[in-house]
Amino acid sequence: MERASFAKMECPIARAVDEVGEGWTLLILREAYKGASTFSDFEARLPITPTTLTRRLEALTARGFFERTTYQTNPPRDRYELTEKALDLLPVLLALGTWGNRWLAPEGELISIVDPASGEPMDVAVIDRKTSNELRPGEVALKAGAGAKKRMRELLATPLVLGVRVRQTLDRKRDREQPEKRRDR
Amino acid sequence: MERASFAKMECPIARAVDEVGEGWTLLILREAYKGASTFSDFEARLPITPTTLTRRLEALTARGFFERTTYQTNPPRDRYELTEKALDLLPVLLALGTWGNRWLAPEGELISIVDPASGEPMDVAVIDRKTSNELRPGEVALKAGAGAKKRMRELLATPLVLGVRVRQTLDRKRDREQPEKRRDR
Repeated sequence: MERASFAKMECPIARAVDEVGEGWTLLILREAYKGASTFSDFEARLPITPTTLTRRLEALTARGFFERTTYQTNPPRDRYELTEKALDLLPVLLALGTWGNRWLAPEGELISIVDPASGEPMDVAVIDRKTSNELRPGEVALKAGAGAKKRMRELLATPLVLGVRVRQTLDRKRDREQPEKRRDR
Repeated sequence: MERASFAKMECPIARAVDEVGEGWTLLILREAYKGASTFSDFEARLPITPTTLTRRLEALTARGFFERTTYQTNPPRDRYELTEKALDLLPVLLALGTWGNRWLAPEGELISIVDPASGEPMDVAVIDRKTSNELRPGEVALKAGAGAKKRMRELLATPLVLGVRVRQTLDRKRDREQPEKRRDR
């Protein structure tokens, strides 16, 4: 009930969660990123019933995550190729996985994200291409976009800095714990 | 039913979706990033019942997204401060919102992510700090981590490159559409 209304919210994060948050969606995408492209590929890799798989592949194709092509006509066989929309989500999911590894895997990192060239673990971060600065609490803000409706345009007419109060609290805490550093500034 | 099992999966992305994918969780975090910190702050900003809000704040505190402190004793009043775990998720959610703006907002960008200093829109990307390279399909791989169990260690003993086949397909498509470029290479 709650989740059904996310798609209409004027929040791009809520819409994204609505779009890919459903159980199988993410697992099907994961297998596609790893190389699966046919119905039997997905069926062999996931503990999913054929009916559910058919339905989810239909939905993902309708939503523009897959482009479907028929590679064999007798019997008919389709191939599901990831689209630009789906590929564009991959780095975001890897950033989410990095957070998951760090905070939700008490047994140790589950899956490492590595550079295929060197085999070295990547150190994943989210940046602003214009300045190369990382997005940090207290240093990033929201503003109404061109597609925002009246109320949102009023609410976010000027940039609203995110996590600013918490950043200040953490800084104060650090200052208390490391008083020398404070004097240096 | 499906979603309940995500938390036990050996996939850091699935665990992350399980942790924050539930309806109100993300909206409460969003308001906290924007500055809300007391029960009445959240109540004023979200169309949520007091019972549900109480329950969600409890759950988020138990999961380590909030640190609760009592700032007034008579009547008792608590403050919910975002933890490092919650702050570490903020850039990931902003990357997800960037994707949502691009692919799920046909009416135009809903909320812009801007640099508070300049007011300029940020151009959000996910990179590897070690090389400063962006994470791109065909140029990023998965490998079993230190916390992986036996089966995963066998499956991902060597790096598995993600999105590699699709990258090749897109490159071939581009080559067909721009044959000159191909000869240049």
